[in-house]
Amino acid sequence: MRDRYHGELGAVHDQLVGLAALVTKAMVRATTAVVSGDLDAADEVISQDAVIDAARDALDARVMSVLACQQPVATDLRTLVAALRISADLERMGDLARHIAEIARMRYPGAPLPPVLRPDIEEMGRVAQRMATKMRQVLETKDPKAAAELHFDDDAMDDVHRSTFQHMTDEAWLHGMATAVDLTLLSRYYERFADHAVNVANRVIFLATGANARM
Amino acid sequence: MRDRYHGELGAVHDQLVGLAALVTKAMVRATTAVVSGDLDAADEVISQDAVIDAARDALDARVMSVLACQQPVATDLRTLVAALRISADLERMGDLARHIAEIARMRYPGAPLPPVLRPDIEEMGRVAQRMATKMRQVLETKDPKAAAELHFDDDAMDDVHRSTFQHMTDEAWLHGMATAVDLTLLSRYYERFADHAVNVANRVIFLATGANARM
Repeated sequence: MRDRYHGELGAVHDQLVGLAALVTKAMVRATTAVVSGDLDAADEVISQDAVIDAARDALDARVMSVLACQQPVATDLRTLVAALRISADLERMGDLARHIAEIARMRYPGAPLPPVLRPDIEEMGRVAQRMATKMRQVLETKDPKAAAELHFDDDAMDDVHRSTFQHMTDEAWLHGMATAVDLTLLSRYYERFADHAVNVANRVIFLATGANARM
Repeated sequence: MRDRYHGELGAVHDQLVGLAALVTKAMVRATTAVVSGDLDAADEVISQDAVIDAARDALDARVMSVLACQQPVATDLRTLVAALRISADLERMGDLARHIAEIARMRYPGAPLPPVLRPDIEEMGRVAQRMATKMRQVLETKDPKAAAELHFDDDAMDDVHRSTFQHMTDEAWLHGMATAVDLTLLSRYYERFADHAVNVANRVIFLATGANARM
């Protein structure tokens, strides 16, 4: 009975890491979709979001079943509740990748993003990928160093976010209002993705050390 | 022991309803802040967000304590886990009201929103208030009719959201890029607030009836 219980806890952990991998891949492909106007990449991210949602539902069902059948206390209870919160963050990160892909989809077959605007998006995409990769590493290893680095990456994301808005408001805007709306939303989606990656890492480190972050 | 247990479950319910009331008030004041350029309202919403966060933390702590001490199963377990999810939605709705107030704050003492743009924001504010009020009613009474109405309200919110973007892209834009960015984000914040209100109602109705919505 106890073996089966620890097997279930291990499976919850593995499912979280697997979900983090799906979300990382979705964000990488979403950035390709929007920067290169790659329609296949956009469609892939959009259809893959259902897979992410199903993986999250399976994970949550397993957690509920362990809570109901094993009545865990103390650390195990906190770990399982944290797993529910982390799965919510990860599912939302998948939604944000999908929103980015949907912007690429809607612009097609019209003009993709003007070349002058691509570097900011590429940079946000790079930072998002780095953060998602580190978040997954924190999930796997509970490495507080990787978690601490995520805060610096999040600052870097905020810097690009701010500089994007600065570009939009400082100079004469030659790209039309639809592009202004798209760029504002894209920038917001990357920023939110980064926030969720930080949340996930904070929850893991709080569980592991009891310190330094909200659960 | 059982009496104390049911008292705790009742307290969780009351705290959720109280949190919903705080969030509704925050959104009403945030709309006033941004439509009227009312700095006092903006500051009130921004400082009140810490109160909402603290109320959410208190609620979550109570849920964790009931989970640990009473080891509930079946309906009670599902209700408590749903309470954690609902508190996350409500806390996020408070954040969105704060983001709206922060836009009002940042524009001050410069120009408030141009008068021609106010009707869209006022309409989004009205729909948001109606939805938050119905969401609270669903929390209090589990009324499936109010929950169903929320879906229509959410469609209405999406319509205003779309028409706002249409205004921005159809006509010559005379209000500057900073206002375009603000209006895009404001519209997004109201739309997300509405989504969370629908989520909360769906969770309550799913718990009460086992049907018709994801938990």
